[in-house]
Amino acid sequence: MTNPKAAMLVIGDEILSGRTRDANMHFLAQEFTRHGIDLKEVRIVSDDPEAIVSALNALRASADLVVTSGGIGPTHDDITADCVAQAFGVSIRVRDDARALLQAHYDRQGVEFNEARQRMARIPEGATLIDNPVSVAPGFSIGNVHVMAGVPSVFQAMVASLLPTLTGGAPLLSQTLRIMRGEGEIAAPLGALAARFPDLSIGSYPFQKDGAYGANVVVRGADGAAVDRAMTELASLFPADQA
Amino acid sequence: MTNPKAAMLVIGDEILSGRTRDANMHFLAQEFTRHGIDLKEVRIVSDDPEAIVSALNALRASADLVVTSGGIGPTHDDITADCVAQAFGVSIRVRDDARALLQAHYDRQGVEFNEARQRMARIPEGATLIDNPVSVAPGFSIGNVHVMAGVPSVFQAMVASLLPTLTGGAPLLSQTLRIMRGEGEIAAPLGALAARFPDLSIGSYPFQKDGAYGANVVVRGADGAAVDRAMTELASLFPADQA
Repeated sequence: MTNPKAAMLVIGDEILSGRTRDANMHFLAQEFTRHGIDLKEVRIVSDDPEAIVSALNALRASADLVVTSGGIGPTHDDITADCVAQAFGVSIRVRDDARALLQAHYDRQGVEFNEARQRMARIPEGATLIDNPVSVAPGFSIGNVHVMAGVPSVFQAMVASLLPTLTGGAPLLSQTLRIMRGEGEIAAPLGALAARFPDLSIGSYPFQKDGAYGANVVVRGADGAAVDRAMTELASLFPADQA
Repeated sequence: MTNPKAAMLVIGDEILSGRTRDANMHFLAQEFTRHGIDLKEVRIVSDDPEAIVSALNALRASADLVVTSGGIGPTHDDITADCVAQAFGVSIRVRDDARALLQAHYDRQGVEFNEARQRMARIPEGATLIDNPVSVAPGFSIGNVHVMAGVPSVFQAMVASLLPTLTGGAPLLSQTLRIMRGEGEIAAPLGALAARFPDLSIGSYPFQKDGAYGANVVVRGADGAAVDRAMTELASLFPADQA
């Protein structure tokens, strides 16, 4: 069985300007790993229609599913829904079910459901709504693309709404060994180990701490017994350097 | 004057799996903003030669300059230098100046300059070395592509070595106003403000805190006086809701 391949498109001027440090990509990566969905690529583009449409079309062609984050609020810089409609060549308009959700929400709050807020009910033709238990304004799925908010608490709630509807694969299992030796010392035996376990992914992530060199070696794969065997071999290669 | 447009390619299985939260993109975004270089796109791909080569070729064609991070260490999963050589259609081999740097470093440490470590002296033909004051193994520049390490302390040191060699533009100035009102309230006046200042970028970043809705409104531009004027207007629109 092959795990589904996913991509993510972050619409994020605030990340590209360095104002905000990404949180949604990190969250989605962890959730997908747990659900056996392989996140293969992430692109971060600015609030520019051409950039969004072209990245979206590239990713939805290359991946089994695409998640987007950002740009579906009520302000002038929220252009994601229009770009998604353009990418799919469909129309977009205020949809009754989305409007009803928002109308009820603002009625409860005693707040005017003004024109800006009605923008959040604009949904491309043929899309399915994604539930937003935090702030009601829905995300939506169209084709293999799932469009979600950029505010982390809302993004996370929408991912929780979406995940049960996705078919995952075997969760990727991983084990890590922290080895207090420079990568240059461990590279040769590690390469040989990787060659003996071609179905596993064996990565080495070096670090420096208090002037000492070390590496976290991560063994990943869907076959838990193979991960165990590789880790046992790995540990026996560097018996005195584990920390 | 137009600011140079930059792109970043992160080679990062560990980020796509959720093991590590990005730090290099966030650091580079902040440095570029300070130096008047516009980061327009970031792509994160896995340790897969085809994915790396194809992303690199797309980004170096669309951006004025490209920074890569990750995959230039001594282990079997460090394949970035080979992929860069392939993307540029040039050869790659151990280069004397890079080897001499590393040889001297390991001699000082009394550590063997073994075959794995010599991999870090493999440099594509025609490249210029980027100084690495942290752990010596150099990065390199070829064409408009600057190839750097993934370990954050090393990446940051390499960015510091690279930046003085890049021609920046006018630093992007930004001011933020935190408004304790839902985006739906501020969207209409904010859109009108953005229309009056077409040369500025005015972004709204909503948040929820302790059950209250608010938005950070960020005004960005190279013209400080225009940023000031827009901020003054913005503040006068919402006099009672600033926090």
